Amino acid sequence: MFKAFVLPLLLLCSARLACAGANCGYQTCNLGDENSLNVHLVPHTHDDVGWLKTVDQYYYGANQKIVQAGVQYILDSVVSQLLLDPNRRFIYVEMAFFARWWLEQSDHVKSQVKMLVDEGRLEFILGGWCMNDEAATHYNAIIDQMTLGMTFLNRTFGPCARPRVAWQIDPFGHSREQASLFAQMGFDGLFFGRLDFEDKQLREKELKMEEIWRGSESLDSPNADLFTGVNENGYGPPSGFCFDTYCADEPIMDDNSLEEFNVKDKVNFFVDAARRQAKHFKTNHIMMTMGSDFQYENAIMWFKNLDKLIKYVNAAKKNVTVFYSTPSCYLYALNQADKEWTVKTDDFFPYAERPHSFWTGYFTSRPGLKAYTRESNKFLQVCNQVEASSYFKNHQNTLSRTSAALKAAMGVAQHHDAVSGTSKQHVANDYAKRLYIGRESCKSVISEVISGSASQLTFCDYLNVTLCNYTQNMQQFTVIAYNPIGREISRYLRIPVDGSASFDVVDMATGNSVASELVPVTEATTSVRRNRGNAASELLFLATEPALGYQQYKVTKRSVSTNFLKKNPISKTKGDITISNEFYKVVFDGNSGLMKTVVNSASQIETMISQQLLWYNASLGNSASNQQSGAYVFRPNSTNPFHISADGKAEVKLVQSDNPLVQEVYQKFSDWAYQVVRLYKGKKFVEVEWTVGPIPVDDKWGKEIISRYDTPMVTNGYVYTDANGREVLERKYNYRPTWNLNQSEPVAGNYYPVNSRIYIKDSKYQLTVLTDRSQGGASLKNGSLELMVHRRLLGEDGKGVGEPLNETGQFGDGLIVRGKHWLLLDTITSSQRQHRLLAEEIFMSPLVAFQNVTSDTNTMGSGSWLVAPLPDNVHLLTLATTPDGVLIRLEHQFTKSDDAELSKPVTVSLKNLFKNFQPTSVEELWLGANAKKDDVTRLQWKLSERTKRENRVYNFERPYYDVTNDFQTSLGDNFDVTLQPMQIRTFLMK
Amino acid sequence: MFKAFVLPLLLLCSARLACAGANCGYQTCNLGDENSLNVHLVPHTHDDVGWLKTVDQYYYGANQKIVQAGVQYILDSVVSQLLLDPNRRFIYVEMAFFARWWLEQSDHVKSQVKMLVDEGRLEFILGGWCMNDEAATHYNAIIDQMTLGMTFLNRTFGPCARPRVAWQIDPFGHSREQASLFAQMGFDGLFFGRLDFEDKQLREKELKMEEIWRGSESLDSPNADLFTGVNENGYGPPSGFCFDTYCADEPIMDDNSLEEFNVKDKVNFFVDAARRQAKHFKTNHIMMTMGSDFQYENAIMWFKNLDKLIKYVNAAKKNVTVFYSTPSCYLYALNQADKEWTVKTDDFFPYAERPHSFWTGYFTSRPGLKAYTRESNKFLQVCNQVEASSYFKNHQNTLSRTSAALKAAMGVAQHHDAVSGTSKQHVANDYAKRLYIGRESCKSVISEVISGSASQLTFCDYLNVTLCNYTQNMQQFTVIAYNPIGREISRYLRIPVDGSASFDVVDMATGNSVASELVPVTEATTSVRRNRGNAASELLFLATEPALGYQQYKVTKRSVSTNFLKKNPISKTKGDITISNEFYKVVFDGNSGLMKTVVNSASQIETMISQQLLWYNASLGNSASNQQSGAYVFRPNSTNPFHISADGKAEVKLVQSDNPLVQEVYQKFSDWAYQVVRLYKGKKFVEVEWTVGPIPVDDKWGKEIISRYDTPMVTNGYVYTDANGREVLERKYNYRPTWNLNQSEPVAGNYYPVNSRIYIKDSKYQLTVLTDRSQGGASLKNGSLELMVHRRLLGEDGKGVGEPLNETGQFGDGLIVRGKHWLLLDTITSSQRQHRLLAEEIFMSPLVAFQNVTSDTNTMGSGSWLVAPLPDNVHLLTLATTPDGVLIRLEHQFTKSDDAELSKPVTVSLKNLFKNFQPTSVEELWLGANAKKDDVTRLQWKLSERTKRENRVYNFERPYYDVTNDFQTSLGDNFDVTLQPMQIRTFLMK
Repeated sequence: MFKAFVLPLLLLCSARLACAGANCGYQTCNLGDENSLNVHLVPHTHDDVGWLKTVDQYYYGANQKIVQAGVQYILDSVVSQLLLDPNRRFIYVEMAFFARWWLEQSDHVKSQVKMLVDEGRLEFILGGWCMNDEAATHYNAIIDQMTLGMTFLNRTFGPCARPRVAWQIDPFGHSREQASLFAQMGFDGLFFGRLDFEDKQLREKELKMEEIWRGSESLDSPNADLFTGVNENGYGPPSGFCFDTYCADEPIMDDNSLEEFNVKDKVNFFVDAARRQAKHFKTNHIMMTMGSDFQYENAIMWFKNLDKLIKYVNAAKKNVTVFYSTPSCYLYALNQADKEWTVKTDDFFPYAERPHSFWTGYFTSRPGLKAYTRESNKFLQVCNQVEASSYFKNHQNTLSRTSAALKAAMGVAQHHDAVSGTSKQHVANDYAKRLYIGRESCKSVISEVISGSASQLTFCDYLNVTLCNYTQNMQQFTVIAYNPIGREISRYLRIPVDGSASFDVVDMATGNSVASELVPVTEATTSVRRNRGNAASELLFLATEPALGYQQYKVTKRSVSTNFLKKNPISKTKGDITISNEFYKVVFDGNSGLMKTVVNSASQIETMISQQLLWYNASLGNSASNQQSGAYVFRPNSTNPFHISADGKAEVKLVQSDNPLVQEVYQKFSDWAYQVVRLYKGKKFVEVEWTVGPIPVDDKWGKEIISRYDTPMVTNGYVYTDANGREVLERKYNYRPTWNLNQSEPVAGNYYPVNSRIYIKDSKYQLTVLTDRSQGGASLKNGSLELMVHRRLLGEDGKGVGEPLNETGQFGDGLIVRGKHWLLLDTITSSQRQHRLLAEEIFMSPLVAFQNVTSDTNTMGSGSWLVAPLPDNVHLLTLATTPDGVLIRLEHQFTKSDDAELSKPVTVSLKNLFKNFQPTSVEELWLGANAKKDDVTRLQWKLSERTKRENRVYNFERPYYDVTNDFQTSLGDNFDVTLQPMQIRTFLMK
Repeated sequence: MFKAFVLPLLLLCSARLACAGANCGYQTCNLGDENSLNVHLVPHTHDDVGWLKTVDQYYYGANQKIVQAGVQYILDSVVSQLLLDPNRRFIYVEMAFFARWWLEQSDHVKSQVKMLVDEGRLEFILGGWCMNDEAATHYNAIIDQMTLGMTFLNRTFGPCARPRVAWQIDPFGHSREQASLFAQMGFDGLFFGRLDFEDKQLREKELKMEEIWRGSESLDSPNADLFTGVNENGYGPPSGFCFDTYCADEPIMDDNSLEEFNVKDKVNFFVDAARRQAKHFKTNHIMMTMGSDFQYENAIMWFKNLDKLIKYVNAAKKNVTVFYSTPSCYLYALNQADKEWTVKTDDFFPYAERPHSFWTGYFTSRPGLKAYTRESNKFLQVCNQVEASSYFKNHQNTLSRTSAALKAAMGVAQHHDAVSGTSKQHVANDYAKRLYIGRESCKSVISEVISGSASQLTFCDYLNVTLCNYTQNMQQFTVIAYNPIGREISRYLRIPVDGSASFDVVDMATGNSVASELVPVTEATTSVRRNRGNAASELLFLATEPALGYQQYKVTKRSVSTNFLKKNPISKTKGDITISNEFYKVVFDGNSGLMKTVVNSASQIETMISQQLLWYNASLGNSASNQQSGAYVFRPNSTNPFHISADGKAEVKLVQSDNPLVQEVYQKFSDWAYQVVRLYKGKKFVEVEWTVGPIPVDDKWGKEIISRYDTPMVTNGYVYTDANGREVLERKYNYRPTWNLNQSEPVAGNYYPVNSRIYIKDSKYQLTVLTDRSQGGASLKNGSLELMVHRRLLGEDGKGVGEPLNETGQFGDGLIVRGKHWLLLDTITSSQRQHRLLAEEIFMSPLVAFQNVTSDTNTMGSGSWLVAPLPDNVHLLTLATTPDGVLIRLEHQFTKSDDAELSKPVTVSLKNLFKNFQPTSVEELWLGANAKKDDVTRLQWKLSERTKRENRVYNFERPYYDVTNDFQTSLGDNFDVTLQPMQIRTFLMK
């Protein structure tokens, strides 16, 4: 029996709910008829923030030759159609589009839209700047893009516009961390569209299309719990009921004098569809997503036919009640239903649409764009920080430029066809260009704050390939290294210089000389640079920056070359080759040239580790399936990867065994695949820098390049990958936690997204690889771990992008990509601590700029915005100005179980954290910064008895969720913020 | 110098103008800036009343797989967009769609639309039920379809909605009669889009894109004069400015922070386009047609971008002023300009889009549909007449069904892709089905009026192929012959009967026996009928019906066969064969079987006339052009047609030389091409009944079948063809009156539309052929005349219909079509009189129905609605009930020069015309019945001096047009209506 759905209006609009007026949010919901099957029709459009066309082209409806789609018209059209009938509802999702449209509207239209929003007729769902990808995105960027969109909504419309529901209908797999973040943003639920086809079949059968998703192993329930629903039809309407311009379904023709009168048929088909769908869900409510990609450009068509559908289905009295609704209202109806819900603790990766069709290629697609997006995040954080520091100093914004462009560009870049690498090439170029433009603004901001002049500092974007005309041609210059981390960091900097000279490096804060050495430019670097620069060496020195601040070094060229550069020129050697530092020794096989053994001297661990670059041949379809490898889908044609060199060996080109600061081995697998393996003095990791490309395709094989580490470790099929750079999930070969997998792709079907780290472990040791960008990763055999670093394809996977992922690059012959892996081999216990801290360092590495040596610069030396460094386990996730004050996010960057010491709760005082700034008020906000923590209470859900018995997924005793938790609720006078493991707390400081 | 465009508001809204309020019609016009080039932007949609989809499918937006188009959404969308901004304007054309949409609207929407109409923001242009074809349509049907649309508008919106401008933007060639009719409907101007490409080039050069078109040689100017403009771009926008869903032009992107900002480029391109166009026109006003087929389904796109275009072009101050306008306002601006205009007296046939691409195939395409449409017109007129007679009798409508469905079906069927034969097959089927449904209603109406019961009469639709189960199986039945003509008519009826019996026929009005005879069913008829009937004979007798009334005959089967049927069974003969009656003798060559000589015994004329069926092989493109023959385009692959039989002979199958009532020769050219040549006792014409099909295409040649008459007459390349069944135009081989023709297609480029008659003449004699439907006709050599009777094609002419014109018919092997030509050979003087009267008879032949013999029916006998017959030269064009009274149209069916006697003016008294009805008031209306004659004054135009000097095109002395004419203005007490030659007068009688 279903209980009555009487809506307790007064109760709902309690003081703790965000209610602008009497009727707002859930109060506007139609909950249908308790004795009937209730069908929530949700008119919606899915507007990709760039994909086949650029975001600008999509907005304006330009470049229609590629595809017909114009978001400006969608919003125009929907608003005018909503105004015609108060029963009609619509949801809008992507603020990158809405915010732009809003700016163009007249006051009259704005007031009409505000009315629609206040009355729940136009409802914002998700409300991020985009609907972000979940596989290749970093949590820092996810939070920023959600904040950008949701704070726009809050500032524009107030609390009535606050999105209650997250809406990830199109991303290709779903991350547990994303669920955790959404929960922390105050969302009451999440709906999505894509999941493994076997998973969906089972869920339909077991009525688990809707569950509680536990997003964190560290955060106490329900803080990271999120009600999560799978949409019956992805995000499209049931078959036969698509009434858009793009569809060919017959409209409802209700003039019964006409030949084609079809009301009776339409009603019957619809009722059948509703009943079929209802069999997969627990309550007498179901939701139908009435829309799709860029639909509602002519909203008349949809609404006119939905009006008729509602009218005729309800009139038919078939015990099916249909009405306009929204995901929030549907969620609320579920919440009001007297049901218990099961709990899910794993994630929805990888996504297989059908056998042989695993969407695991995009974990790596467009590695250049992925790295540029990751690096741009750092730019944005630095930009935000220096804006805040300027605000601290001046108590107002005095800067000539802002971070706004980069914020928006980063918001756009998180889209599920942007950083995912699944857009058309011209759109990928546009994403990069937007980031570039945003970074240029931020360079100006950073320069103005640090040097006092917006154009004073010089930034070199191509330091990674030893390209910087400025440093190469100056007799004397200064190097400014900005550290966005809340603790002191030392990092080796590599500055392109003229190889014939030698250099003095002086710490300008202390006046002390700093040890430096010259490192020759590798053949790989020359191959990447082509004719764009001729710096022969990199000047290497260890820069130490204060917490959240910068350090300046003066570099002076000397006329006489020193002997820092050992064993130059390059020579070929025989026999094993070893490099070592205080922590590690790495041995290379003199015959094969491949890594052979890694020794952790401190922990006294020695393991055979063979590492090599290999390639899979991209499938163009075979007898089992016509599925090709493409931007989305990874499908190798053979299970075993191929060697890059004909004989499977790397050619060892150089050993620098006795340089004081760095020891390097250069490996050349072919003229398109190089590596440098490095040990830096004092650094507890092995750096493996790979340079791959132009990937040759003359043999008509698309190629997917992996870096594979093979060890004798007994790993039993287990591998561990992070989710969006934060918590780590356990993966097992050919296994899914919630259903019996029928594995159709032994390679692609075992790939998982790696954002920052991947590791394998045996009973004692752990081999960890930290990445500098998102990549696909897997463990396909015992003791083995692989990361896909680059891919170039000739086929197309048929998912709509319509062009092969064939990045030809600036010179037309194929894109060359360079990146880094940091390799850790240590005990399991100490590995966690190391990878947490090193991941922060690789992610937030110092931002380097250059400046002329003048009397001014000589005095800059160093600076820090902090009174004292933050504890090691606290990550300063956000420090940014907003129109309302300064936004700060502090994060406990350890899980409950990472480290005996660092996993403990930690307290930071906001009162005395910053130089020049003592906040007078500190308000805690939800993670998206769009609502005060106190103003919003999330819906509570009842868990199933069965779930309660299963400790594995249910780790506390309370049978019901409640709003109490273990977290601090009052900060005290000093604004002392206590962080639990993995907790992120968001504050507005004034 | 341009004179000022100050709008004399008060003057315009004089008592003689139709002004609902102070601002209506031309008073709402923006006339721009007199010192600037003024660009009238005309947002419009062109909504085919069926073409690729049926009219219902187009209305609803169904069958989207064929093409995306939904008129309901266009009107929804346009209305909502017009409401947003009073500057926006839109025109709507096709009432078949608008009237349906209107019925579905709420009172609120209706009042909004009325406001838009009153304010000139939504303007109705043309206002017909459809935009009719001009080549294959009969004037009766044109007037009816225009009346249906325009009276809907008048009843719904009043005089403000009266269309001022005719809008024939898509039809494929333009008829002079159409211009004449439009002038008589009160239109001030006509704009169209398609004309011969050479014609257009010259007009652009000579600034003759706009002229005065003189539509009649009989009606005094300016009664049939019409200002006529050629649109610069057909009916599309200038290149680069199509902002519809269907277009790929870039929108105006005016956010200058965006990469793709294009305002400056768009403005420059537009100004250039406007200046280029202005070079082709006389004034500083030009019109741009901003729309196309089924555009504005999402009107937001168009209006939003046009708003911006207007804003930015005007702001650019480039001496180009852009504004929303309508064709009426553009016309009014031209009228206000101080310009003189040249006069055109010929027409715009044939239409060549480019060399080798003559749209002359559709003159014949779908001959079955063309005949069905023509015959349905008769059905409708009869239906209207009996409805009126019922109203006369009962002073109210007491009938259970009405003519409405057939009116609408006929309105739809006149569309330029309907009767033209240029729709897809499924749409052609739909047109026929609509006519069928309408006819079924009318059968009920006719039955109810004549027999007193809606189901009493039986109608046999297939009498032309001797199919009628009713007559074949009854021992006794009555035949009712209804004569829709206003004078007494005698016509031979042919009733399918059992061949083994003989029959008595009795005139039920007089009780007199009527001579009859049995005619055997031909092989051709058997081939058409297949298994659908087995009537062995036709019972032939002469039925004489009173003016505008019916006559009833009783037929009784006798058990013993008589000897009426001579020379049966069929036998083959040798030697010449002759048939004859009082007027004609026709001799056939016994060897070839072909017609050889025709003798007009009365006029003592004897001429060699060879007649045969031949075929052109349809081009599939050649080296000169890839143009194929298709539904629109006729392009034979060879200049000379081919014989149908292998030896070029027809096989003479039967001669019935001595039957009293009819003498027939059967010809068989092949098993898919037959003829019967007949002479009826007392009938002064030679009937040639052709039966063609299934046209074989096994040889991969599409075939276009002609009937050609070759004589020794010296005709000097001249041939005469009617326009829409009314006035006749002179055509000359490889010649156009207004430009030097570069003939690329010696056959197709000399084809002209024939609606009712075609003739050639030498110094003494005239050979006339009357047709029963529209056909293409030509004279390609001296003394020769040909009519295309059927076509079946395998290629496609690339004009959008997307399928070959390959009518496969009910049995799938090809459509068989039967039709009649009435051949006249006489002096020129007497031929005119004959073809005028016989054309009326062939067009309005008696409608035949059958009834059981009961006591009731025995007393019916005959009936006429008229007190006395109309004079021979008066055609009762319309007699129909309307909500306001009875509509009557009387037509003088002779031209000024047709006949010494019958061409004189003639007077008819409406007071005493009808039995049971003496009108109390009679108001003269414009031809479209949507306005009183007194309420509307047409715009006056100044003719050029050069035109005035050319008597050929200018036959009166007045330098200016004025509103006086030679026509009667007062009817007097008896409502005496005087008709001038070719004059049609329209009255509302109450």
